[in-house]
Amino acid sequence: MEMQYKRYNDKAGHSYCFGPFPTFELLENRPERAVEVLYHSAVTDCIREKLERLCRARGIPCTQADRVIGRIRDKENCLVAGVFRKYEETLRRETNHIVLVSPSDMGNLGTIIRTSVGFGVCDMALIRPAAHICHPRTVRASMGSLFRLRFRYYDSFEAYAAEFAGERELYPFMLEGSKGLDELERRRELLYSLIFGNEATGLPAAFASVGQSVRIRHTDNIDSLNLSLAAGIGLYEFTKK
Amino acid sequence: MEMQYKRYNDKAGHSYCFGPFPTFELLENRPERAVEVLYHSAVTDCIREKLERLCRARGIPCTQADRVIGRIRDKENCLVAGVFRKYEETLRRETNHIVLVSPSDMGNLGTIIRTSVGFGVCDMALIRPAAHICHPRTVRASMGSLFRLRFRYYDSFEAYAAEFAGERELYPFMLEGSKGLDELERRRELLYSLIFGNEATGLPAAFASVGQSVRIRHTDNIDSLNLSLAAGIGLYEFTKK
Repeated sequence: MEMQYKRYNDKAGHSYCFGPFPTFELLENRPERAVEVLYHSAVTDCIREKLERLCRARGIPCTQADRVIGRIRDKENCLVAGVFRKYEETLRRETNHIVLVSPSDMGNLGTIIRTSVGFGVCDMALIRPAAHICHPRTVRASMGSLFRLRFRYYDSFEAYAAEFAGERELYPFMLEGSKGLDELERRRELLYSLIFGNEATGLPAAFASVGQSVRIRHTDNIDSLNLSLAAGIGLYEFTKK
Repeated sequence: MEMQYKRYNDKAGHSYCFGPFPTFELLENRPERAVEVLYHSAVTDCIREKLERLCRARGIPCTQADRVIGRIRDKENCLVAGVFRKYEETLRRETNHIVLVSPSDMGNLGTIIRTSVGFGVCDMALIRPAAHICHPRTVRASMGSLFRLRFRYYDSFEAYAAEFAGERELYPFMLEGSKGLDELERRRELLYSLIFGNEATGLPAAFASVGQSVRIRHTDNIDSLNLSLAAGIGLYEFTKK
């Protein structure tokens, strides 16, 4: 069965996480998405035993498969792969959200996932077109924290807003935002969604009328902060005490 | 003369910035470091004219050199290269500093430069071993903002501290820092140095007794923020109104 795994493909129904740590994250946080765990005979006993123990408890096959790993892995020294079914989940109504409008870079996306989960914002909407969140490169950049996130793709921001806008504050982050992040006066009991645009183009100008637009002050020495920095700073400010 | 330029080499006395925008930054901010500007015949008239105008005003040669660019560039579509002498500068006593202890990744280093310059902290100390700040990859990741930064390498943190510690507050950022970034009470009139460790290992434990150690609160869902995120959040908090 496992011999049929091919290199990652956007069209396939499954994807891979590479390395022991992301695979532990898969098994501990999204075991119902896991199909199988593959390991190379060169892996340490300690890691193999932990993988076998986690898999056994969850009824997931754990298989030594040197040739398959050699075929599917994205880096030469990778000795563990988690196979998982691609998925989406419903976002929760009672939590804060992060909304990414057309993120294009999987490395940035993974970094933003890690930061967002790190600050306790664990529901993410992605507005298409958007990078593949289940791609091994995104999973790697997230260091496996993808498996602690709920995420869902929407065809438009309107589709997301129709579902959630009435019950929460919307904060689009824009170079021309009307309030500085450090001067926001917000009611801490209200839920919020932090909205960030594409790496190169930011949010379309129309977002200026969506909720309260926010800018992160910086000097004129640079054109803009990079996307994952802007998202990280926004998340820090909104989640701090 | 320009025909002798070879691909970037750590040992050589000069380096390159690639692309029009970083080259404008070189010419506008560090013209005394510029040796020559090279452009490919396929570059647009608009960019060539701006390069020629900036170079003429500063007495810097501006040369069409298709073959040289083809030889030295790091990306296929690059049509402009600025050649500059590697340099270091004395850090200023009257400004805030950022101190990077053993940064190893040039992409991270460039991103931190861009963010630091963006928040107006334009003096950087690098404690060896440290990535090459004049490497084209660092310059690219900084989007040319390197040329707005003063930087200097030190063989040890002690060497940096001997020069500057008495006259400023020192804030090492550590996972086990004794104060949360969001609960610091600091006197705004005092100068500061923000200190960050290596990507993988952070700062050595001994930094806990250097000035006031700081942690950025996050959930246990992740091990740590990545270095450029931590630096960006620290810079944002220290420079906001």
